[in-house]
Amino acid sequence: MAKTLTIALDVMGGDRGPSTVIPGADIALKRNPELNFLLYGDEGEIAGWLERYPDVANISQTIHCEIAVRMDEKPSQALRRGRRESSMWRTIDATKTKQADAAVSAGNTGALMAMAFFNLRTMQGVDRPAIAGIWPTNRGDSIVLDMGATIGANAMQLVDFAVMGAAMARAVLGMKKPTVGLLNIGVEEVKGLDEVRQAGRILRKLELPLEYHGFVEGNDLGQGTTDVVVTEGFSGNIALKAAEGTVRQITGFLKRAMVKSWRTRLGYILAKPAFDALKEKLDPTGANGGVFLGLNGLVIKSHGGTSAIGFANAIELGVNMARFDMVAKIARDIDLSHKVDTVPADKSVKKAAKS
Amino acid sequence: MAKTLTIALDVMGGDRGPSTVIPGADIALKRNPELNFLLYGDEGEIAGWLERYPDVANISQTIHCEIAVRMDEKPSQALRRGRRESSMWRTIDATKTKQADAAVSAGNTGALMAMAFFNLRTMQGVDRPAIAGIWPTNRGDSIVLDMGATIGANAMQLVDFAVMGAAMARAVLGMKKPTVGLLNIGVEEVKGLDEVRQAGRILRKLELPLEYHGFVEGNDLGQGTTDVVVTEGFSGNIALKAAEGTVRQITGFLKRAMVKSWRTRLGYILAKPAFDALKEKLDPTGANGGVFLGLNGLVIKSHGGTSAIGFANAIELGVNMARFDMVAKIARDIDLSHKVDTVPADKSVKKAAKS
Repeated sequence: MAKTLTIALDVMGGDRGPSTVIPGADIALKRNPELNFLLYGDEGEIAGWLERYPDVANISQTIHCEIAVRMDEKPSQALRRGRRESSMWRTIDATKTKQADAAVSAGNTGALMAMAFFNLRTMQGVDRPAIAGIWPTNRGDSIVLDMGATIGANAMQLVDFAVMGAAMARAVLGMKKPTVGLLNIGVEEVKGLDEVRQAGRILRKLELPLEYHGFVEGNDLGQGTTDVVVTEGFSGNIALKAAEGTVRQITGFLKRAMVKSWRTRLGYILAKPAFDALKEKLDPTGANGGVFLGLNGLVIKSHGGTSAIGFANAIELGVNMARFDMVAKIARDIDLSHKVDTVPADKSVKKAAKS
Repeated sequence: MAKTLTIALDVMGGDRGPSTVIPGADIALKRNPELNFLLYGDEGEIAGWLERYPDVANISQTIHCEIAVRMDEKPSQALRRGRRESSMWRTIDATKTKQADAAVSAGNTGALMAMAFFNLRTMQGVDRPAIAGIWPTNRGDSIVLDMGATIGANAMQLVDFAVMGAAMARAVLGMKKPTVGLLNIGVEEVKGLDEVRQAGRILRKLELPLEYHGFVEGNDLGQGTTDVVVTEGFSGNIALKAAEGTVRQITGFLKRAMVKSWRTRLGYILAKPAFDALKEKLDPTGANGGVFLGLNGLVIKSHGGTSAIGFANAIELGVNMARFDMVAKIARDIDLSHKVDTVPADKSVKKAAKS
């Protein structure tokens, strides 16, 4: 039997709180019988739900929290009101104190990010944290980071993101030596940012369980050209939302076009299995959650509006990463990557810029 | 009858050169009988095609050019080999010498950009040029810039892009007071870049034929939240390619899913009108071409692989902008926008950063 793992759950997080979190925990437990849960939230509410899920009740410990961070609360406000006391803070804190192997919350992203950074701090050697997401591609899933934690990144920060993303691909997608691409733009004349080029030179030298592929462009995201795609948070967030928006735009357009005549309506009914397959592929509950990387603890953000199955998938993300001992492996790889002699690369950049 | 306009065409540009350009010119001429063309390229080849399109022959002048820029040529190489002599250079040059009201080429993007910038230079008051594209949205077309001409942009450069994009929306989409959004990321904790915030403050003060909407996110692109979306070239290029990649991903996925069974195949046949409508909506030849803004001349880049209809649409983009006297209007608006007192906004940024 696999080693027992403890996962901390912010029961009050998300649009539907315990009514999603507890059934989600039940699904995850059925798939992974070695789990224990720490349930942070309103004792009374949690008890009511645990009556309906006795298996979860058996292996869980409830920790009462007076404060629940609201979905519309500003991060600064949430920190002021909910520091130390809220279910969100205490869920995160459980990974810091090693009571839990991972923390999962479907709460307010900004507040969760602020609390996680503030409480856990970045791990040694990592300047800036990143949010990694799982991107469904033509070739399977890819890991894309940063989705918006860090605006702008220098070469070494991009290298750190690559190392962290590759560790996540190994933990979550089960790859031995994931391929890594640096997101760049292909217009010949400009050839991308200096820091991206320099990060590429450093990555080429690394002897780590990752294979540096080179630059990739925006269209490579959906293509699945590499297992990991690295960029700074501004362009990463915009790429993510542009793609999500395009999915909604196309499916919305097709839906409207399909009901225009009896012929297309009948066609839609017959072709429905194909649409269902598409929906499943693009369903955010399938690959649910962003992961905060580079912190002294594992924190998984599940979508606020997720279903019980989606929340269970977010729990399993945490389980896989904890089982893989991802934080320790990232620490080791970051350490190794910082030992690579990057000075010549720095010098060559300066020379190139002068010439 | 409308005023006669002269459009310079790089007949050798694009994957298929004259076999697309001359038939495209014929289509544009039928729709706009007041056009004249200057045809730059190989005299012999052009003459052969003009025999088949006598209407175009009647109103065109051919200028023989020895050199054609290749589609795979590097910009630096194209400049070295093709400066002054190539059909691409001379097409651009015709707008500089005022022999033509606009220049259209389906050639190599990097080379065209390099030659246009090098030959035409940026207009007075404009630091950096931008490439603007037409983005099909749920609400109609929007103008998005910069698509990759300028990596990074300060607040005033973003304001210039907004002014130029709004002028293009007025010229091409026929709007009186287009709405303008600044692309940003919505993660609370980070709230976007300083320069984007400062550009927003300046835009709010401008009294120009544009309505500043505020920040928009990646998903607003497909939604069509604003008529114009402004960002610097790195994120703009990545957003564009991420969206294009997503379109290909979804349509490819649906196609494969549709042939999986007889039921879905029949469904596809019946639902085909809906798919055809989608294809037409997303067809790049419908809204063909990027426009170089901020230069002393109008240059339109048509897709390299475009059809005759697509090339005709690119010509008409040029026609609409020339008729609108867009370059002069941009010059006036840039001038007005630079007279707005931006010093207090600058100071408030510094203060905010300190506090």
